[in-house]
Amino acid sequence: MSHPNCNYRAFRDSYLFSTIYRRTEEYLAAHPGARVLNLGVGDVSLPISKTVIAALHAAVEEQADAKTFHGYLPECGLPGLRKAIAAHYGRYGVELEPEEVFISSGAIDDIADILALFDKEDTALVLEPTYPAYVETNLIAGHEIKYLESGKEDRFLPLPAPDLKADIIYLCSPGNPTGAAYDRKALKAWVDFANRIGAVILFDAAYEIFVSEPQIPHSIYEIDGAKTCAIEICSLSKTAGFTGMRLGYTIVPKTLSRDCMDFNAMWTRDRTSKTNGVSYILQKGAEAVFTEQGWEECLENINRYHANSKALMEALDEAGAWYCGGKNSPYVWVQCPEGLDSWTFFDRLLNELQIVGVPGEGFGKCGRDYIRFSSFGDPEDTKEAARRLKTVF
Amino acid sequence: MSHPNCNYRAFRDSYLFSTIYRRTEEYLAAHPGARVLNLGVGDVSLPISKTVIAALHAAVEEQADAKTFHGYLPECGLPGLRKAIAAHYGRYGVELEPEEVFISSGAIDDIADILALFDKEDTALVLEPTYPAYVETNLIAGHEIKYLESGKEDRFLPLPAPDLKADIIYLCSPGNPTGAAYDRKALKAWVDFANRIGAVILFDAAYEIFVSEPQIPHSIYEIDGAKTCAIEICSLSKTAGFTGMRLGYTIVPKTLSRDCMDFNAMWTRDRTSKTNGVSYILQKGAEAVFTEQGWEECLENINRYHANSKALMEALDEAGAWYCGGKNSPYVWVQCPEGLDSWTFFDRLLNELQIVGVPGEGFGKCGRDYIRFSSFGDPEDTKEAARRLKTVF
Repeated sequence: MSHPNCNYRAFRDSYLFSTIYRRTEEYLAAHPGARVLNLGVGDVSLPISKTVIAALHAAVEEQADAKTFHGYLPECGLPGLRKAIAAHYGRYGVELEPEEVFISSGAIDDIADILALFDKEDTALVLEPTYPAYVETNLIAGHEIKYLESGKEDRFLPLPAPDLKADIIYLCSPGNPTGAAYDRKALKAWVDFANRIGAVILFDAAYEIFVSEPQIPHSIYEIDGAKTCAIEICSLSKTAGFTGMRLGYTIVPKTLSRDCMDFNAMWTRDRTSKTNGVSYILQKGAEAVFTEQGWEECLENINRYHANSKALMEALDEAGAWYCGGKNSPYVWVQCPEGLDSWTFFDRLLNELQIVGVPGEGFGKCGRDYIRFSSFGDPEDTKEAARRLKTVF
Repeated sequence: MSHPNCNYRAFRDSYLFSTIYRRTEEYLAAHPGARVLNLGVGDVSLPISKTVIAALHAAVEEQADAKTFHGYLPECGLPGLRKAIAAHYGRYGVELEPEEVFISSGAIDDIADILALFDKEDTALVLEPTYPAYVETNLIAGHEIKYLESGKEDRFLPLPAPDLKADIIYLCSPGNPTGAAYDRKALKAWVDFANRIGAVILFDAAYEIFVSEPQIPHSIYEIDGAKTCAIEICSLSKTAGFTGMRLGYTIVPKTLSRDCMDFNAMWTRDRTSKTNGVSYILQKGAEAVFTEQGWEECLENINRYHANSKALMEALDEAGAWYCGGKNSPYVWVQCPEGLDSWTFFDRLLNELQIVGVPGEGFGKCGRDYIRFSSFGDPEDTKEAARRLKTVF
């Protein structure tokens, strides 16, 4: 008699985005023709850049001809792509071997899969407010989850107290949903802490390309000691507009081990058993991202999103609102005015200013007084939203 | 202090294909210019067909333009593709709802991921000889594994004894490596057994398109009762030459439940937490596979592989060798002559006839006296190999 994994019982479905959608539709039904300005979107809006498109077409063409056709692929990634990503880290002063880079179908896939490396008794530490996948994947795997709350007082960048206990530590910097980013000194505190207690940090670097200030690291490996305590999970979703293309990468340093077990060897073994690699076509597209021309095109797109953040931040500054994020992130995390909770403020923004944000409560209870605005929307809509926002704080 | 998953310690690396490769290279080094005929390959050799290539190019083009660009996708698959695959099952007389079809990055990915649905105490039953992924994924997950051996006496199609105990049952039909395929009556015995003891069958249908005999089912759902005990995992790898493209699908019936938990709902929940779906481009390519024209092109390629199997089977028949498979499978599983073990016969074939096969021992100890030949190779090489094989049995 087969028994299901009872951990699925612990779930309640998240209705965050479906509720946002429903309330917006209701507003539009009641106000036909209204122009609603969407700052809620967490998805990119600019298309794939031309260098990558050309590489994708060329790879499709290779698959059409027996002489150039590619069948089964190396499980951990095409050697050329692993090498290109290792070289990319050189931009940030980080030395990696290609064999420390693993190609994935996206950051979220590896956030889920990487838990196979850990003992079931390991506890996970999640910093709230949080990207929901850290919590959900641990619920399914049956790990005990501890929460570390953050707020205005630490600018949503909490540090480890000396008596904090955890085996697996999730850090996301620049963060989702808060946009807050650890500087070198703060990240060093986490790295030293993890090395001292033997924890492993799962560092989500999905927004690294948005980093614009020199004191903010792009990679945790810019911090001394990180290669003995951290796995970094990254993605081309935001970097290259790959949300619908699906390709990411995970760094597992050869120097990371616990109980005499080498995490790089374990992950290589895991991938070899559980996948046949990521599509040849997608990997060739990803290789093009890391060419000089490809990277320049990515940065051009990021600058367009940065311009949206800037418009929002200027308006919020003028209005005297409290916020974090924006500078090194596509997200601006804003305190609701007049002590409003996030769903009440959401309704007010929608009904009075026709602006859609994401209520902070959707990311954990310490997000209850905040709203997330995104810079992925239309530039004209964002400018108009910024203009209207000045009146509300 | 983080503790690694000690189950990785249970592994020894498989050297099957690397040993085959090394011995072949050594032979070629000692015999420069020798023509080695490769019947070892488990990978397709024909390129992607033209209807699919056109769909892939069109999807790439959509991603180049903001007006047609696709970002985040539904986690369980594009509705159009889920619907097309549900309709495809109609060819086999099976009715499915689109919501029972889940798109994956390939069968092996879901063979690994699907174990999340089961309690850690569940035991897995593996039929030997076996595709190694069933064993390896259960080793990592920490499930107890039981083996059911098969052989010449049951034509490598063992049936469940009444006192057999298992919670999760792996069936692969047509099978890898043996090519043997269960007929309706035998598969009905497994379905009835699973329903009686409450086990869940994980049915690997990756080779279904090779089925050529009417008594052999393409899908386990052709059997009455399967929708209350079976999950079917399939792939376009062999069907449409997608080994390097990566797309598969998994069927989780809405009527499958244990302990009042609904497996379809659990898997939907799991996918929603752990993935952002499969690449838009790949899904559009897969949609083209299931068009009338796309499917016809797939069958044309399969017929070319079938012709290779036929050449091999005719030679083996003439030589009086014992084998199974071939008719409904790209694999022919042949008993070694003169009581030779599979590695000894491998060496003899390589050295005397310049033919490469895969020693059966690589798939479990009851494969020790067998060798696997594949029909995925070059037609001229296969014909020549067939001619030479007549002399060795």
